[in-house]
Amino acid sequence: MIRPPMNAEIIAVGSEMLTPQRVDTNSLWLTDQLNQLGVEVVAKMIVGDDRERLATLFSAALARAEIVILSGGLGPTEDDVTRDAVALALGRTTEFRQELLDAIAERFQRMNRPMAEINRRQAFLIQGFEALANPRGTAPGQWSQLDNGKIVVLLPGPPHELKGMYFDHCQQRIRSILPPQHIATLQFRVAGIGESDLDQLIAPVYTRYSNPVTTVLAKPGDVEIHLRARCPSQEEAHALLAAVGPQIEALLGPRIYSRNGDDLETTVGKLLLQRKATLSVAESCTGGLLAGRITSVPGSSAYFNGGFLTYTNAMKQALLGVDPALIAGHTEVSEAVAIAMAEGARTRTGSTYAVSVTGYAGPDGGTEANPVGTVFIGLSSKEKSKARRYQLFGDRSRVRALAVTTALNKLRQLLG
Amino acid sequence: MIRPPMNAEIIAVGSEMLTPQRVDTNSLWLTDQLNQLGVEVVAKMIVGDDRERLATLFSAALARAEIVILSGGLGPTEDDVTRDAVALALGRTTEFRQELLDAIAERFQRMNRPMAEINRRQAFLIQGFEALANPRGTAPGQWSQLDNGKIVVLLPGPPHELKGMYFDHCQQRIRSILPPQHIATLQFRVAGIGESDLDQLIAPVYTRYSNPVTTVLAKPGDVEIHLRARCPSQEEAHALLAAVGPQIEALLGPRIYSRNGDDLETTVGKLLLQRKATLSVAESCTGGLLAGRITSVPGSSAYFNGGFLTYTNAMKQALLGVDPALIAGHTEVSEAVAIAMAEGARTRTGSTYAVSVTGYAGPDGGTEANPVGTVFIGLSSKEKSKARRYQLFGDRSRVRALAVTTALNKLRQLLG
Repeated sequence: MIRPPMNAEIIAVGSEMLTPQRVDTNSLWLTDQLNQLGVEVVAKMIVGDDRERLATLFSAALARAEIVILSGGLGPTEDDVTRDAVALALGRTTEFRQELLDAIAERFQRMNRPMAEINRRQAFLIQGFEALANPRGTAPGQWSQLDNGKIVVLLPGPPHELKGMYFDHCQQRIRSILPPQHIATLQFRVAGIGESDLDQLIAPVYTRYSNPVTTVLAKPGDVEIHLRARCPSQEEAHALLAAVGPQIEALLGPRIYSRNGDDLETTVGKLLLQRKATLSVAESCTGGLLAGRITSVPGSSAYFNGGFLTYTNAMKQALLGVDPALIAGHTEVSEAVAIAMAEGARTRTGSTYAVSVTGYAGPDGGTEANPVGTVFIGLSSKEKSKARRYQLFGDRSRVRALAVTTALNKLRQLLG
Repeated sequence: MIRPPMNAEIIAVGSEMLTPQRVDTNSLWLTDQLNQLGVEVVAKMIVGDDRERLATLFSAALARAEIVILSGGLGPTEDDVTRDAVALALGRTTEFRQELLDAIAERFQRMNRPMAEINRRQAFLIQGFEALANPRGTAPGQWSQLDNGKIVVLLPGPPHELKGMYFDHCQQRIRSILPPQHIATLQFRVAGIGESDLDQLIAPVYTRYSNPVTTVLAKPGDVEIHLRARCPSQEEAHALLAAVGPQIEALLGPRIYSRNGDDLETTVGKLLLQRKATLSVAESCTGGLLAGRITSVPGSSAYFNGGFLTYTNAMKQALLGVDPALIAGHTEVSEAVAIAMAEGARTRTGSTYAVSVTGYAGPDGGTEANPVGTVFIGLSSKEKSKARRYQLFGDRSRVRALAVTTALNKLRQLLG
């Protein structure tokens, strides 16, 4: 068993990870997972496809930390050097394993594609390591607890393969070698407030406590607040949370849309299911992104009927029956048109509710009264149709993302 | 003067940089700047506020690379360890400099704020280093070219301070110690081939050359190939590219959709504009994501009319006029229904072209013949309507992303 402090280092491998565009999201995700287990990540590294350089970096990391996790570089090409670099650093060989090649061949067969000769490279295991099955890709992972108790893990680079393999094979093993500790967590998800406003609101509370630790995670218009208490017993951990959680909850109030980790689209979906209601959309400036988020929820066909993308005024008239006089009188970015769009979508699909979005996402467009960033969001039900104006800030992509989140949040408030 | 290869490593310092939320954007920006000068970034590290650990990491980086840039950890608190760690690693002392303290005091005076005693820590310079003025903050930077010619730079963590200091003091100095060199680049964007198939296709060519360097960057169904040649003269750089580029181009063939950095949706948009044509969509399993990508291009309203989200069979009938008998006979995930959806979208919007997507994104759904991942993509024009079946692999989110890319690529082929 490793004694505290239990420190981990993470190494991402791949020259493409060293380009100015690429963010190493795997290490962020792994840090979150390890923190949840009570393991601190004390250093992260990114290195290109260079066997000797990686071997040096890995050796140094292994000298400092109890757990070293590498991601990427397990592919079949000459550029995939992780296996060889770790073997080199540990002074070991790699061994060909027929059963690993068989598993890779089987996967190619299932996909009805021929396996290339180079995939053979992925069937080599570092001496003394254990292979971790990868049902989501071709590269098996590798795991070893060394004689000195330290852990070395090789995970594939594609995020969905890495995450699946971590949950399937690593989480439980890492937990089992840690001293017993109990973690209690609480989370609030909040919409309709910016990150800095939110931080100003709750920082006076959470900065007074180092246990639980409070983390604030922001996406456009959507913020997660995580509290994590770590104690020798479950009771103590819960007591610490009970001291802080309600204070923060009271400050957030009805902005909280979820306490169980559900995202906004899942929350809205559950509210619709509870009411046995159906939904449709009419999107202009968001161009499908609102429906795209609604349908990211598995099973959303139980409440989402569909809708209309009316990117031009002609389409608003033809597909939604918006009166041309309304557009002429108010412009297409107006309360009146947002209401007419939502009503058109609701009646033409026979849905219980409809949401509409019309606005100027930029970079061009807009008027003096309604500059770029102006978005109207309409809501229609049998009882009532209404719309409201929002002034959003940011580039085209951010304005569209904020408009989608705002529309989902208005819908939640209507249903809640 | 440093001789090629000129490699840099970047170290970001600060425990807050090791949280699951924080992205080290400074290193991305610095990588871009250094690449522009012809310096390769071969490793990046993030380390917390730990003097000994940072000293070890820094020593190792300095042993490997010609340029080591550190960002952060120059503040006035005990947690700001960069100055001391670098001094420790180099076996040097730090020296108090009255003129640095005077500059810091002056800044506080300008801001009409009292200077705290701890700010004195920021006035210590590593022996043999040169201070870099920081008009945007309190922490001066530090620069040294060591006796072995290697460069060590300490920059402040706040991005606007770091960028300003780089432009004011570092860019020109780094350029002046590099041999004169010119950079020429070439890029191909390719759709319709997976990363490993693509790599198998072109690796036999590009692995024979270390100049130009070839980088392959993959998103689902969409791959970028970058070639960068570095030479003493512009002519030589272009000659190297001319030796390799056409070989790769020939292998990629019509899979190439862009040579100027345009993404797939921008490429399709330009083709539509050239033809003065308009487009509409009918989306089922992608639920708006296809239109969302099409409309991510500013000015897409010039060719994108809009479309239909027909998430249920009832909507396919009501909004697109798909014959219920077709659905009953072939199921909604079929060639016949994909064609009828595309035709319905095209005729009901009066567009030149329409694209449709219908499939099983998972995790549930699918049939024996058409399991999860089966997607039909339909194309309709005045002349012809057709559809084709694709078997895509991955989770719900990946299948949807692949379906969108595939649909855009089919449209490009039709228009190209």
